[in-house]
Amino acid sequence: MTTVRLPQRGWLFDLDGTVYLGEALIPGAADTIGALRATGRRVAFLSNKPLYTRADYAAKLTRLGIPATPDDVVNSSIVLARHLATLDPGAPVFVIGEPPLIGELEAHGFEVRRDPHVRWVVIAFDRTFDYAKLNTALQAVRRGARLIATNPDRTCPTDEGEIPDCAGMIAAVEAVSGAHVETIVGKPSPIILEVALATLGVPVSDAVIVGDRIETDIVMGKRLGLATVLVLSGITRPGDPRIAELRPDLVVDSIADLV
Amino acid sequence: MTTVRLPQRGWLFDLDGTVYLGEALIPGAADTIGALRATGRRVAFLSNKPLYTRADYAAKLTRLGIPATPDDVVNSSIVLARHLATLDPGAPVFVIGEPPLIGELEAHGFEVRRDPHVRWVVIAFDRTFDYAKLNTALQAVRRGARLIATNPDRTCPTDEGEIPDCAGMIAAVEAVSGAHVETIVGKPSPIILEVALATLGVPVSDAVIVGDRIETDIVMGKRLGLATVLVLSGITRPGDPRIAELRPDLVVDSIADLV
Repeated sequence: MTTVRLPQRGWLFDLDGTVYLGEALIPGAADTIGALRATGRRVAFLSNKPLYTRADYAAKLTRLGIPATPDDVVNSSIVLARHLATLDPGAPVFVIGEPPLIGELEAHGFEVRRDPHVRWVVIAFDRTFDYAKLNTALQAVRRGARLIATNPDRTCPTDEGEIPDCAGMIAAVEAVSGAHVETIVGKPSPIILEVALATLGVPVSDAVIVGDRIETDIVMGKRLGLATVLVLSGITRPGDPRIAELRPDLVVDSIADLV
Repeated sequence: MTTVRLPQRGWLFDLDGTVYLGEALIPGAADTIGALRATGRRVAFLSNKPLYTRADYAAKLTRLGIPATPDDVVNSSIVLARHLATLDPGAPVFVIGEPPLIGELEAHGFEVRRDPHVRWVVIAFDRTFDYAKLNTALQAVRRGARLIATNPDRTCPTDEGEIPDCAGMIAAVEAVSGAHVETIVGKPSPIILEVALATLGVPVSDAVIVGDRIETDIVMGKRLGLATVLVLSGITRPGDPRIAELRPDLVVDSIADLV
């Protein structure tokens, strides 16, 4: 295959499972991205992971052979910070999350506190989650704090297998507080997609999303009316019954099959 | 009031909120228990908390003026250990829980492990809960481990307010693993009540449960057909609509009003 099958000008790529797996580029990914860019397509990268900064992602992509800048990357940390800045700029927040998310929130003007005297509890994938954080979140909710979260994923694939993701932290806080997370900004929320489309500078009708997770990448693309490409190089297996149900515009073995 | 209003021979008392509040005995509790015992009633104490041993509870009750032995106390740790011993004696288990529960499980012959190579994940109220334990639980479920828990409480009242209880740990494990807890042995489960009735040596028809939580103490008593007494010295407030709905046999301000 040597021609781009879809005419869209804006291309959004999921990262884990689509562009790379752990530290290894999916074979052909650099050629596909290069070919798209060579034909004038705009490319951006989407991740639900709040564990790294956009600069970290750009550096990793560049190191693996896909030149990228932080502005090419949209992850759930930056989307949460931008979205919360529209709802309650500068608010005091308590964060169940790791330093890159805390840094992003501080960079957007939020007052990140370690006590429950806050207006929001921000819940993220947090490998340092513990009982003390759960208790602070509970006390914050009892004082009226609202809940917002980065991403709904149950688990995160790693080289050593799947590990607990943000759904665990969300469930714990909701269970003890009786409160519900109002907004989850990451995929499949339209919020992250709207930020990504603004990054690309293209309308929905001229954009395509390429991803390996049918329940996030494809569901979200369908919801907003983008063209959707499912790659089978990550989580979703070829026989998955949801493929027939959701009918992505294209199903390919990997990103290499796009050009 | 100077007469026992209910004729039952076996009396089960919830502890927190019913017999004491934190470190303070509810006024009149020692007199009521003493009067019941003086008329030949059997008395046992029930707690959903897996944080202490039965000996700890007996020592506390004795110190506060209600002489008690470990055999007078039934808490969710001992009930879980006994129940699991009937299901899978000596099984390797991973425990999200504190040392008194681990000790109870070891005393019942279980192999308590710190890795995911187990047949059961035991989930309890655990103030040392953290991401590493959540991850070990996930890996254990992925290897086929089953889930069992001590108690369903969202929060636990303390002198400093409510803190996260076992529901937080259960929700986190269920959310990331996609598995469900098969059995929660504590109130309102009939399992803890059956152990308590065996301790008293009386049939259901000759037993009464006295507690401050309508959703656990009273629900459980109604389910098994015991007489039920709601005390308003703890969590449940007088205007609670569930009182009219569930209709405990008796509603009193406190344990002092029982004799």
